[in-house]
Amino acid sequence: MEKLYSKKIILARRSLVEADNNEIIENAKSKNVAFLVIGDPFAATTHIDLFLRAKKEGIKCHILHNASIASAVGITGLQVYKFGKITSIPLENEDIESPYDVLKGNSSLGLHTLFLLDLNPDEEKFMSVNDAIRYLLKVELKRNERIFSEKTLCVGCARLGSESQIIKASMAKDLLKQNFGKPVHCLIVPGKLHFMEEEALKLYS
Amino acid sequence: MEKLYSKKIILARRSLVEADNNEIIENAKSKNVAFLVIGDPFAATTHIDLFLRAKKEGIKCHILHNASIASAVGITGLQVYKFGKITSIPLENEDIESPYDVLKGNSSLGLHTLFLLDLNPDEEKFMSVNDAIRYLLKVELKRNERIFSEKTLCVGCARLGSESQIIKASMAKDLLKQNFGKPVHCLIVPGKLHFMEEEALKLYS
Repeated sequence: MEKLYSKKIILARRSLVEADNNEIIENAKSKNVAFLVIGDPFAATTHIDLFLRAKKEGIKCHILHNASIASAVGITGLQVYKFGKITSIPLENEDIESPYDVLKGNSSLGLHTLFLLDLNPDEEKFMSVNDAIRYLLKVELKRNERIFSEKTLCVGCARLGSESQIIKASMAKDLLKQNFGKPVHCLIVPGKLHFMEEEALKLYS
Repeated sequence: MEKLYSKKIILARRSLVEADNNEIIENAKSKNVAFLVIGDPFAATTHIDLFLRAKKEGIKCHILHNASIASAVGITGLQVYKFGKITSIPLENEDIESPYDVLKGNSSLGLHTLFLLDLNPDEEKFMSVNDAIRYLLKVELKRNERIFSEKTLCVGCARLGSESQIIKASMAKDLLKQNFGKPVHCLIVPGKLHFMEEEALKLYS
């Protein structure tokens, strides 16, 4: 899996998928073409777009669904049913507050929030769980709406689904001291907990 | 896939997983045991419970995540990120209004709602998309909160991910006239649509 994040393949993929004169679609008009992605093919808007363009060209598409972070988070013991809107925190987040607003919305309904954390393999940069917590604390300081604090229960995950996965559940300030290692990371801020969810999180605290 | 819903296997699975003196856990103390499920293993509370019990017994668990309806719904063109809480409509729903409340909550944030529809293979009963729409109209009639009407845009799905899948997007009253065939069905009530989601739904209207 991690090899798929190498610079070459990501660059190739992006240009292939997003180009106007699309090599994948052009080839698919006369040949069988397979397109492999990480996670479920329809979690990314780019892939929905590719699918729509292919459909418009009358190309028959056969989809094989796959495991996705959207349901793999269930391994934390938090119920997949009780997640609200998923959001991403970009590396360049100076003036961006929308992830905080998503947390606010989900929390108002008692739902869990999954933050997907950005990575830029070209520059070998990625957002860590620690970066994500610092980001939320920074927006809280600005907005002061008591949505997130150092005492908020958080679940930090790294490389979920791999042999080297790490899952840690603790207060934000505790997770800030942890080293989660290599990407990809994600952060969960749980909403209202069912007793079985509480019990599960103890395994990771 | 459909064969897995046969009476025998479901019955065997339930008793195996939920029993107090659990055969799976007992065997796993001395042998390698594999446990296969439909969808992602952690979408069901029962499986989280089994995992917790195994962990408490000191049994090493290795999880292979899998495609789940929670992300496979992306094939409708509705963004997986923009789904709110997932809910189920049970076959016995006389006095149950919680699915309506979930729709209300998600709609208030502009999020899409996925309704998983119950099935009882023992009695060969299942909820169809049509049943689900009639159920929501019935609760609306009682509650009168203008959350759902005959004119609400709905996406009805049957056997998603299989060769025989059906996806239809239209007003509730139109979908009521459709026959979606064999189970498993699910219903989506979209929230606020992005233009690309609108365009995608046209493919299914």
